[in-house]
Amino acid sequence: MLLNRMSWPDVKRARIAQKVVVLPLGSFEQHGPHLPFTTDTDIVTGIARALERKRPGKILLLPTLWVGHSTHHLTFPGTLSAHQMPYIQLLVELCGCVAGMGAKKVFLLNGHGGNDVPARAALRELKCAFPAVRFVFASYWSLAAKTIRAVRESGPGGIGHACEMETSLMLHLHPDRVKMSLARRDGPRHADAYRRVDMQHARPAYFVEEFHEMSKSGVIGDPRLAAPEKGKRFFEGIVAEVGVFVEAFAKW
Amino acid sequence: MLLNRMSWPDVKRARIAQKVVVLPLGSFEQHGPHLPFTTDTDIVTGIARALERKRPGKILLLPTLWVGHSTHHLTFPGTLSAHQMPYIQLLVELCGCVAGMGAKKVFLLNGHGGNDVPARAALRELKCAFPAVRFVFASYWSLAAKTIRAVRESGPGGIGHACEMETSLMLHLHPDRVKMSLARRDGPRHADAYRRVDMQHARPAYFVEEFHEMSKSGVIGDPRLAAPEKGKRFFEGIVAEVGVFVEAFAKW
Amino acid sequence: MLLNRMSWPDVKRARIAQKVVVLPLGSFEQHGPHLPFTTDTDIVTGIARALERKRPGKILLLPTLWVGHSTHHLTFPGTLSAHQMPYIQLLVELCGCVAGMGAKKVFLLNGHGGNDVPARAALRELKCAFPAVRFVFASYWSLAAKTIRAVRESGPGGIGHACEMETSLMLHLHPDRVKMSLARRDGPRHADAYRRVDMQHARPAYFVEEFHEMSKSGVIGDPRLAAPEKGKRFFEGIVAEVGVFVEAFAKW
Amino acid sequence: MLLNRMSWPDVKRARIAQKVVVLPLGSFEQHGPHLPFTTDTDIVTGIARALERKRPGKILLLPTLWVGHSTHHLTFPGTLSAHQMPYIQLLVELCGCVAGMGAKKVFLLNGHGGNDVPARAALRELKCAFPAVRFVFASYWSLAAKTIRAVRESGPGGIGHACEMETSLMLHLHPDRVKMSLARRDGPRHADAYRRVDMQHARPAYFVEEFHEMSKSGVIGDPRLAAPEKGKRFFEGIVAEVGVFVEAFAKW
Amino acid sequence: MLLNRMSWPDVKRARIAQKVVVLPLGSFEQHGPHLPFTTDTDIVTGIARALERKRPGKILLLPTLWVGHSTHHLTFPGTLSAHQMPYIQLLVELCGCVAGMGAKKVFLLNGHGGNDVPARAALRELKCAFPAVRFVFASYWSLAAKTIRAVRESGPGGIGHACEMETSLMLHLHPDRVKMSLARRDGPRHADAYRRVDMQHARPAYFVEEFHEMSKSGVIGDPRLAAPEKGKRFFEGIVAEVGVFVEAFAKW
Amino acid sequence: MLLNRMSWPDVKRARIAQKVVVLPLGSFEQHGPHLPFTTDTDIVTGIARALERKRPGKILLLPTLWVGHSTHHLTFPGTLSAHQMPYIQLLVELCGCVAGMGAKKVFLLNGHGGNDVPARAALRELKCAFPAVRFVFASYWSLAAKTIRAVRESGPGGIGHACEMETSLMLHLHPDRVKMSLARRDGPRHADAYRRVDMQHARPAYFVEEFHEMSKSGVIGDPRLAAPEKGKRFFEGIVAEVGVFVEAFAKW
Repeated sequence: MLLNRMSWPDVKRARIAQKVVVLPLGSFEQHGPHLPFTTDTDIVTGIARALERKRPGKILLLPTLWVGHSTHHLTFPGTLSAHQMPYIQLLVELCGCVAGMGAKKVFLLNGHGGNDVPARAALRELKCAFPAVRFVFASYWSLAAKTIRAVRESGPGGIGHACEMETSLMLHLHPDRVKMSLARRDGPRHADAYRRVDMQHARPAYFVEEFHEMSKSGVIGDPRLAAPEKGKRFFEGIVAEVGVFVEAFAKW
Repeated sequence: MLLNRMSWPDVKRARIAQKVVVLPLGSFEQHGPHLPFTTDTDIVTGIARALERKRPGKILLLPTLWVGHSTHHLTFPGTLSAHQMPYIQLLVELCGCVAGMGAKKVFLLNGHGGNDVPARAALRELKCAFPAVRFVFASYWSLAAKTIRAVRESGPGGIGHACEMETSLMLHLHPDRVKMSLARRDGPRHADAYRRVDMQHARPAYFVEEFHEMSKSGVIGDPRLAAPEKGKRFFEGIVAEVGVFVEAFAKW
Repeated sequence: MLLNRMSWPDVKRARIAQKVVVLPLGSFEQHGPHLPFTTDTDIVTGIARALERKRPGKILLLPTLWVGHSTHHLTFPGTLSAHQMPYIQLLVELCGCVAGMGAKKVFLLNGHGGNDVPARAALRELKCAFPAVRFVFASYWSLAAKTIRAVRESGPGGIGHACEMETSLMLHLHPDRVKMSLARRDGPRHADAYRRVDMQHARPAYFVEEFHEMSKSGVIGDPRLAAPEKGKRFFEGIVAEVGVFVEAFAKW
Repeated sequence: MLLNRMSWPDVKRARIAQKVVVLPLGSFEQHGPHLPFTTDTDIVTGIARALERKRPGKILLLPTLWVGHSTHHLTFPGTLSAHQMPYIQLLVELCGCVAGMGAKKVFLLNGHGGNDVPARAALRELKCAFPAVRFVFASYWSLAAKTIRAVRESGPGGIGHACEMETSLMLHLHPDRVKMSLARRDGPRHADAYRRVDMQHARPAYFVEEFHEMSKSGVIGDPRLAAPEKGKRFFEGIVAEVGVFVEAFAKW
Repeated sequence: MLLNRMSWPDVKRARIAQKVVVLPLGSFEQHGPHLPFTTDTDIVTGIARALERKRPGKILLLPTLWVGHSTHHLTFPGTLSAHQMPYIQLLVELCGCVAGMGAKKVFLLNGHGGNDVPARAALRELKCAFPAVRFVFASYWSLAAKTIRAVRESGPGGIGHACEMETSLMLHLHPDRVKMSLARRDGPRHADAYRRVDMQHARPAYFVEEFHEMSKSGVIGDPRLAAPEKGKRFFEGIVAEVGVFVEAFAKW
Repeated sequence: MLLNRMSWPDVKRARIAQKVVVLPLGSFEQHGPHLPFTTDTDIVTGIARALERKRPGKILLLPTLWVGHSTHHLTFPGTLSAHQMPYIQLLVELCGCVAGMGAKKVFLLNGHGGNDVPARAALRELKCAFPAVRFVFASYWSLAAKTIRAVRESGPGGIGHACEMETSLMLHLHPDRVKMSLARRDGPRHADAYRRVDMQHARPAYFVEEFHEMSKSGVIGDPRLAAPEKGKRFFEGIVAEVGVFVEAFAKW
């Protein structure tokens, strides 16, 4: 079910307590010279819609929040972002509305790395406010690690931001929004393992770097390896793996 | 120009200081049994896109903020809203990003009455933070009062929420999202002039009423008078009148 | 009844739930070279006292809050003001005390334009905190628009701040506090209707201007047209029109 | 100089950096059955005006802030108060305006015990914000301890709230506002020295008690000992001792 | 009882409602060239442990909070401090936990002057949140004024910070942490009684001075008079006098 | 270098910009029936001291912050915690002091899982406030994953809280604080991989569970497998692996 196309009496009849309510979290931030600001939002919306299409009776899909926490991208003009604390507050507000309409299971499906810390912080606030509602947060790349490892061709550092994977996904979902001729590899090349940047590399130590400290172009990874067919494989694998999680979550 | 379809190097080249940057403000709130939650967002987005199409070189159009301040609608399930203070903060955040990318004139084009007070409050905060940037806020129905008076057929109380005008605009813009068979007149019928509710009636005294205190169905006004052709006349008049303001603002 | 002159056992006996409690909102801000900082406070106090004198059994009058939201006047030395958010908080605090003593109808009678937005914002917070108490906010010039139109001689731009009306009211109420020899016309003279400044002109678009951006002397309007007799007519008309509202409000 | 009666050009000419700016802090809180809510405000205003009359060239007197921090009195109806944090913020706002107009020495002359802790907290915030401006806070009874000891007839527990001293001062300053026939002794009579309540007794341990936990009538002390002539001696002694401090402060 | 050495089932069995729970408040701030940053924490911990040793069944001793409010020492490198508002919040948090585990009497035993105002402010917040729990705050030097007067040899200005008393106490408790050869007298020598600085002098007027405005070395007072034997006398007298208070408090 | 034992002139001479400043983060929370509230604090302090002992010239060690973010343990009495937002603020305060004394590299060495999200959030705030200072956060078990995998005997679910590892470490560091006879295995045994709890298992989806929802005793894992000798091996491996990170960080 798409909340977008419903009215309040529809919601009243919808037995929300028995659904998994999905709130996709995007961003509006620079994605290098070859991808639009909406990249994260476009991708996570695509994934969420596909998920819902397969389980229309189980999922209530909310609109994608296109404002993300992108403070680290603000030196690249065009980025629209909320700082950490207002972003946490915004998530708490929206999730509070969802709890208020009777939801018991709420899945924040994330499409932007910068949302990770503040969304986790928001979940702590929500647990205090709504102890009986289950709020779960996951980034699609965490749930779909297997797929990504299987499909990617790049080595460490190839998948980061506006990279092999995101560019492929956009070529699959919105080819008209990609300017492949401008795609370039970029990103830090530290010898030091603690500082390696890759969406599939969990750093043992955490620190904050602004994006301009790591990349001149706004890209981290290798978008030259992107292709529409690869995007299709990423997409279908991600949708399947995220779907496995949703099925499990529905049974908690 | 549509920021949605740009990259950061495009923005860098765009001479933003010479544009009117437009941020449309919508909502995600109940609109009675016959209209979707996206009504305000759909309408203001439609107006903003039409404005931009006529002046692609003068306007930089941002994505519509679909989260609005709809605390007064929260008892109707499905509404997604930010309370007043987080909403103010969110506007300050987004407008801060816009100022940060070099804009000098920013127009918050509003499509939802509930945003009025917090948006004005946000402008005060922004004036302190960015004294040299002009932020202007206006609801389309204020700028287009003449058109609305000319087109409306209802008397006082006919245009409020999910009403003759909004339903007509949706019939024009998104006829598939309207269930006309469910449209009913609703809203308070106070004898007392201080409490009359109509989008074109400025009350001399201000007070806050939750929507469920005024309307059982979530409608205020008379959506039965709505028609697609009337929607077209509303729409074109509004776009023209808002356009006159944008032209004037560009010259301030 | 004047709360100022009561003790707590008097209040306990006063059947507050059946009164209209009136909190006058003033300011302490520059009013040009010819009027004192207390102008708004003096005028709104005068109106409130006259209202109460006519309905001692119906009204419980609180002391006038002389601190207003006058951020836009701060470059004129002598102005004492609270920024927007602390001012909102202050109103919430005071109104919370009033709700706590059992009031059901509270009228914030306003005498300073800068209080308008934050007072409205405060009412939203109060509605959430005290859903069963009616808080109403109105500026005297909104309730008394008819009188003002009838009495004023100036054209558009003549009534703004330290103007024909305020100066006349002060000449009537506190002639010793007015230095008529220093009264000068001032204020912006934009051709553009969107930017016209007059207390009786509702702008369709909203923006924040600091006072020094509009007036060198701190005056907007034409105080030269002020006269004591005119002040008397303004005052009596205002008191009557505000009284009509109070009578209506008492019946809600 | 009285800021109340000045205009902004007067302030500009006033060499504020060379004055002691005095902000009197009152309250609006219950003072038993025999005194009005304005008692603290009336007394501190009386003292401040007398101070200024003797040193019109040295002192710039601001209006008395009648809103105080009286949370501990809120169960007595009629009290109007700001909670601690908004009260701190309010003092910071007002003192910020004073610093902004060029003051270098600002004296918060206090007339209400409940303001003590939040005013000290405000001074810490102000020191960070305006390191070069001297803000000093003192309650008149601290500066005038000698006078009070000399004039009082009551033993320990006689001077607290609506007591021998405050009632005497009101009989001297505003005899029409006192209902002596209702004056009764009240207040706690702990054997334990740690809990003794008297304005001239400094407790070595600090704890918060709501007023209704200590007094049924809202009085602490013995107002029956009050007399107009005693009020005059209190008043003149206090004005003299506070004046000694102002003279010293002016030389720091 | 030492909470440090307990487990949660121990706490469950401990009848906390019948204990005096003691939270010692220290600081981590410069104490001149001859004492460590932990001085206040070391002293207050020593006193608290001695108190508990004598009344193991009556007292539940919490760990000493070594973070204090030391904004006024921040120009001396090495100081670790929380600003006033976060410090208040921290005390509220910790005391909230203590209330949550069932305590009815909580004693904040203070060892650092800078904590005085924010701790009092915290107690006001706690009284609102937990009206039935007694929170008491006292600095050891206030409770033990008699001892200190008896033992001290210095005149006014001799006991302030890193002074005769604190240095003696450290020589008694932790002689290895004192570098007596670096001990020097320092601190302001105003003629003006309003500005005298001594832990045993209550100033009638309050103002904030940063430490570097009063002392070059970070010392106020005369540490040259310190001696281990004197430290023992201070310590034993303080423990005894604070103990008298704890006994009284236990009976409230 | 141990900041604890220094004076401010020592700090001034210490060339702090060239050190790695280490702030150990502990907690004061229940650790089952067999371990004290100080467990995390004791362990992280032990590790930090060992690190410093090996590199006294490179490391400036601060005192361990024993207040952690342990909201999820609050139903177990005795836990002392700061909620998330005040904890973030506290870290920002302390790290702000460290930046203020000239540090360029600051390592928050963490010993408590609950600190993870708020510490990351604090780092984002610090990056905005001090863009040129490197703040790094890491939990010792993340840096020492190899050691832990090598030494542990338990399978998945064996290392969580008050578990095989923590109990072993305490048996090595503070054997007198462990009551092995009370050690029991506890914790959730979900079939579902998304909900497995083990310090070495990274969950792909994030959600907040209060501790009492997962464990009756407050233990997660198998403390019965703990042994002093094993604790020694854990400890030495951890100190070595954390040391490798410190060496790398010193070169960034």
